[in-house]
Amino acid sequence: MYGKFLVEGDKLVRELLASSFKVDAIFKTSSWNYANQRDKIELIEVSEEDLRKISTHENPNQVLAVAHIPARNTEILENPLANGLYLACDKLSDPGNAGTLIRTADWFGVENIFFSENSVDIFNPKVVSAAKGSLFRVACHYVDLKQIFSSNAHLPVYGAYMDGKSIYKYPVNQNAILVIGNEANGIGEELAPYITQRISIPNFGGAESLNAAVAAGIILGEFRRAIE
Amino acid sequence: MYGKFLVEGDKLVRELLASSFKVDAIFKTSSWNYANQRDKIELIEVSEEDLRKISTHENPNQVLAVAHIPARNTEILENPLANGLYLACDKLSDPGNAGTLIRTADWFGVENIFFSENSVDIFNPKVVSAAKGSLFRVACHYVDLKQIFSSNAHLPVYGAYMDGKSIYKYPVNQNAILVIGNEANGIGEELAPYITQRISIPNFGGAESLNAAVAAGIILGEFRRAIE
Repeated sequence: MYGKFLVEGDKLVRELLASSFKVDAIFKTSSWNYANQRDKIELIEVSEEDLRKISTHENPNQVLAVAHIPARNTEILENPLANGLYLACDKLSDPGNAGTLIRTADWFGVENIFFSENSVDIFNPKVVSAAKGSLFRVACHYVDLKQIFSSNAHLPVYGAYMDGKSIYKYPVNQNAILVIGNEANGIGEELAPYITQRISIPNFGGAESLNAAVAAGIILGEFRRAIE
Repeated sequence: MYGKFLVEGDKLVRELLASSFKVDAIFKTSSWNYANQRDKIELIEVSEEDLRKISTHENPNQVLAVAHIPARNTEILENPLANGLYLACDKLSDPGNAGTLIRTADWFGVENIFFSENSVDIFNPKVVSAAKGSLFRVACHYVDLKQIFSSNAHLPVYGAYMDGKSIYKYPVNQNAILVIGNEANGIGEELAPYITQRISIPNFGGAESLNAAVAAGIILGEFRRAIE
């Protein structure tokens, strides 16, 4: 299934069909119906048992769609980025984290996320499921992060470090790139020269670190509280 | 294995052994060593293959411990709660969320979490793994949340709702109980009369909701920023 990905369950498939993603086929049980179809996608009726066989879930919910992974948007690399808030993920590896992070970015109005080439595949079914439809709204780009940073010197680059300055005391800029590092190793050393602001979420207790998506949510909230 | 739970992997087992949790047995491969043992726990050496058989992970990391689920702390229900920040989870159902939430609470210095009786089992291996050792530091109590709220009228109860007042504009109290609702249904109707402050994380984008642990992290950060 090269170049395709699976979208499972009633709610997600409806969000997919409301998006601009191209859909190849829909496998559904007799109970599932969808009026107002965009482009006459073939609905293939299957038994619950057969749906369970093709699903990645133990208890699939009525429907499964095969959608196209969109072509890479190379334009975003060719021109300077418009002003705005961007997220960049360095070697993010856990699918659940990636999905939750895409959902969190969507909540805070981040429209573009850059993933380093060695990050998790965001069309992995676990990412699709955890992103809860935000995958169809937020544009995700696999890129060389160094290239993005160096060709967009007009945007400050905020990096989350254990020893950065407290986000609660640091003025934030609504036009910026926020970098979230790998779950175990943080932001790669090779990116350090591009980080213009080293920030940190103050630790009040015993945990050694925060989950990557939770950290992204807290920092994005801190950016947005300034304009609320 | 009634009343016991599994702790897997080098780092987590070391954190377990540094805690006050009672440990029954440790199954380890020949590569794993631990000096300074607390109470002469039996170390059972097994092959990598056998460790894989008893582990819940596909690739277990050297060691697995069988620990005791601590007895319920009933005292915390019998006396008024000391001043401080508490978390209460209503019907939290996803193990990954529960673990991440315990880890996040630990980061922000929350020492006690109340779970409604029908919440996920926090000694489920997925919770243990996602909590990253915070399970051994944060006291988790299964309780009737209504009883906690009604017997602690000195603590305001903040509930996260879609239509509450913006947390960015709402003064917070460091002595409080923060309630996080079920992933799909939010805070149960039966708890509404006990919520003294209805709060909300402003939405700037397209996502319909936030992951429960991400929401908890953003709100706890908002409480703590006031004292940083």
